[in-house]
Amino acid sequence: MNGVPSAKTKPSGASRAVALIRVGVDRHPASDYVAVEEPMEVRVNGVPFAVIMRTPGADRELAAGFLLAEDVIRTSDELLTIEECEDTTVEARGNTLNVAVGGDAVERLATRLGERREVVMTASCGLCGRRTIETLRSRVAAVDGHWRVPVDIVRQLPSRLRAAQDVFDTTGGLHAAGLFDRAGTLRHVAEDVGRHNAVDKIIGRRVMEDALPLDDFILVLSGRTSFELVQKALLAGIPFVAAVSAPSSLAIELAAASGITLCGFVRGDRFNVYAHDERIG
Amino acid sequence: MNGVPSAKTKPSGASRAVALIRVGVDRHPASDYVAVEEPMEVRVNGVPFAVIMRTPGADRELAAGFLLAEDVIRTSDELLTIEECEDTTVEARGNTLNVAVGGDAVERLATRLGERREVVMTASCGLCGRRTIETLRSRVAAVDGHWRVPVDIVRQLPSRLRAAQDVFDTTGGLHAAGLFDRAGTLRHVAEDVGRHNAVDKIIGRRVMEDALPLDDFILVLSGRTSFELVQKALLAGIPFVAAVSAPSSLAIELAAASGITLCGFVRGDRFNVYAHDERIG
Repeated sequence: MNGVPSAKTKPSGASRAVALIRVGVDRHPASDYVAVEEPMEVRVNGVPFAVIMRTPGADRELAAGFLLAEDVIRTSDELLTIEECEDTTVEARGNTLNVAVGGDAVERLATRLGERREVVMTASCGLCGRRTIETLRSRVAAVDGHWRVPVDIVRQLPSRLRAAQDVFDTTGGLHAAGLFDRAGTLRHVAEDVGRHNAVDKIIGRRVMEDALPLDDFILVLSGRTSFELVQKALLAGIPFVAAVSAPSSLAIELAAASGITLCGFVRGDRFNVYAHDERIG
Repeated sequence: MNGVPSAKTKPSGASRAVALIRVGVDRHPASDYVAVEEPMEVRVNGVPFAVIMRTPGADRELAAGFLLAEDVIRTSDELLTIEECEDTTVEARGNTLNVAVGGDAVERLATRLGERREVVMTASCGLCGRRTIETLRSRVAAVDGHWRVPVDIVRQLPSRLRAAQDVFDTTGGLHAAGLFDRAGTLRHVAEDVGRHNAVDKIIGRRVMEDALPLDDFILVLSGRTSFELVQKALLAGIPFVAAVSAPSSLAIELAAASGITLCGFVRGDRFNVYAHDERIG
């Protein structure tokens, strides 16, 4: 659906200069860049669906990836168009997208709207909309992709992501996610104030390119790995997740149960493998 | 509602030993601690309200703080009891709380359930449940608390938080939030895989102690400051937020508009003040 900009294109509007007071030995006015955070309203077939706090840039990709993770769409065919809405307030202009979905996604959307009618949905992280603990199970049982990555390539993944991130991030305030091929080449990178958004942007782009499942790819994260991030990888069919920081207990459990290789603390020459080390070396 | 454990009490179940493969010069089995992440189901007056992915520990505080941030309760009086539910599956046992609310909160809950009926609510961070951008405004306009904190005290806040965190965090996977008094003494600390949860746990504890508004306190964060974290401070009346890392653009805008002093990059002898520096020095 969209062109293929270089991985190093600076996203427009991702950072903004602000005035501040710098306190050190003395105290003086200064300015610096901060990561932009703005609400984006996602409508599906014209119906308001969610507000996502995000860093502007790759908004269509974010919407597509978000709707995959929310199980509204399951295939690229079900994603018809993504367009900016005109009928919004000045404040929301440029921050409101309508996603047209077709095929089985129409029924899935209706079901989802119906299910959700009866409850208040809200949460502090990513899994909101789930009313009960039982509903957390994923529709996808396990990934494919039975290949191996040499140890040396795994070691280099974070520095390669970081090299791309340096271009983007002048703020110290953005999370990054990168999609690498099996040879360790960075194929796509996204940054956002929300780490979930960075992953949705990457996966959403592949949905728009009709390139699912991503069973030939490695997902690299600049931070920690939570349950939800492994779940997003699972829904996209990504069999290998490597992160710079620690995984949570539930992230490990889901990776182990769904066949995903999960590496953590990938720093310098060392890393830990928490699940499915058969893809290493 | 509860006793006052020492700030350094180790939360039970916050970390767990896992088996892993450590890859360095060679490759060998090892074990390490990871942060526990588990879903908690919050019911209000018996009705399922939300599932929160959290680190076990201070669950009641988390539920109380969450319901304050969600504007279901506004005062401690409206919070009646918080009890573990027995009628759950084995999996959900110990992870399901029912919060009984009274007074105006009953009507607010009904209104909220009604408002929310019509839409799907979900998001990747904290503000889900908002259908449109216009609904993001807070009910509280501004904080009180017109006092000053010496520069030297501000500088020491992160290391004091870190000293308390060292006791808790053997995993490298937890966010911390600390509530400090104006003299720079740590009064309460909480840790969680979700930074929003850590803040909810701290504020929720004060709700349970009938100690709102918190206009004599400083909120210190181990990471970045997003819009939502400033909003939580605002709803609790906290006029001073200091963080180890960067704020987002919208965090700064909300702090500026609501009278909150916002410091960032508080490291070593230096820090930045992004809003309301009249409380510094």
